[in-house]
Amino acid sequence: MQRTIDFFYDIGSPYSYLAATQVPRLAERTGAAVVWRPFLLGGVFKAAGNDMPARVPAKARWMLEDLSRWAKHYGVPFVFPPFFPPNTVRAMRACVAASRHGRVAEVSLALFRAYWCEGHDPSGEAAIRAAAEGAGLDGGALFAATDEPAVKDGLRAATEEAVARGAFGAPSFFVGDALFWGNDRIELLVESLAPATGA
Amino acid sequence: MQRTIDFFYDIGSPYSYLAATQVPRLAERTGAAVVWRPFLLGGVFKAAGNDMPARVPAKARWMLEDLSRWAKHYGVPFVFPPFFPPNTVRAMRACVAASRHGRVAEVSLALFRAYWCEGHDPSGEAAIRAAAEGAGLDGGALFAATDEPAVKDGLRAATEEAVARGAFGAPSFFVGDALFWGNDRIELLVESLAPATGA
Repeated sequence: MQRTIDFFYDIGSPYSYLAATQVPRLAERTGAAVVWRPFLLGGVFKAAGNDMPARVPAKARWMLEDLSRWAKHYGVPFVFPPFFPPNTVRAMRACVAASRHGRVAEVSLALFRAYWCEGHDPSGEAAIRAAAEGAGLDGGALFAATDEPAVKDGLRAATEEAVARGAFGAPSFFVGDALFWGNDRIELLVESLAPATGA
Repeated sequence: MQRTIDFFYDIGSPYSYLAATQVPRLAERTGAAVVWRPFLLGGVFKAAGNDMPARVPAKARWMLEDLSRWAKHYGVPFVFPPFFPPNTVRAMRACVAASRHGRVAEVSLALFRAYWCEGHDPSGEAAIRAAAEGAGLDGGALFAATDEPAVKDGLRAATEEAVARGAFGAPSFFVGDALFWGNDRIELLVESLAPATGA
């Protein structure tokens, strides 16, 4: 039976962006189905009593270096945006809406790139329309869907689910009850899914 | 010219313990000289305005799982101690005192194991004497040295140096100005020291 990895992320989280760029390879390496689960990191922080890592000035300075090192390690573009943190409520709702059309991975990756490579507001109408159209969806319709109660509820429910399962930050990977927190835990996640190599 | 990696750690930090178990291999893989730099994590947190990661309950729960995964990944023993966090002031002074005899790695590893594998108070006289004697030093003399002003000043100076260089947590690896924070950054540290593989 194919295993499932739930990948919870927020477009405003730089380590979520880095992790998202590795999702195709993660699926390939593990043979698992990776399910893209947009959530709202602000809601997770609030519920878990956590705070942005960049709250500590020395840590924020280090993170800039660290993020660049990971981007280089992965060979992906990364440009720290002109404004941070962004309000991602509408961006995350767009990802939820894209899920209903089977295009959540494409739309999410496009919004990640819009913000973390090009510095555009990921909740802006222009970015959401462009992400939708790049994924073969109707840009105006996807943007309009971000005001639908069912979409808003879907985002809230995903955030609550992640918190109930133990999330306190992003990205959060779940395999059943097991949480792997952070882009830097992808290797341990892969290891946990590798077939045991007994004698 | 041989490169130098400064390895700042506190015996009370579980990720410092995990990293410490990898130091011999780190030296081997990079060809660098790894210098064991005992510091006081409580002092670093205070100076940097940081806090224990286990302050967030969901994160503390996850950390227990994460630490066990790393221990399994490395193939090293790990048993969460009956009391946490420990007061490590005297343990860290013992490490500083051991530096003067060229035995800081041996004494530090012994104190890490006393606490993270056997649950003993790493600042207790018994643990410090045993660590010293296992490293071929006079146990009573090393314990007495933890009250010497020069040793206290040495620990304070190392802590201040780490903060001045940008540390905000443990373990902290420095290669010149470059900080690699965390056991989970050892791979990026190794990568940064690898010879460029140009065409």
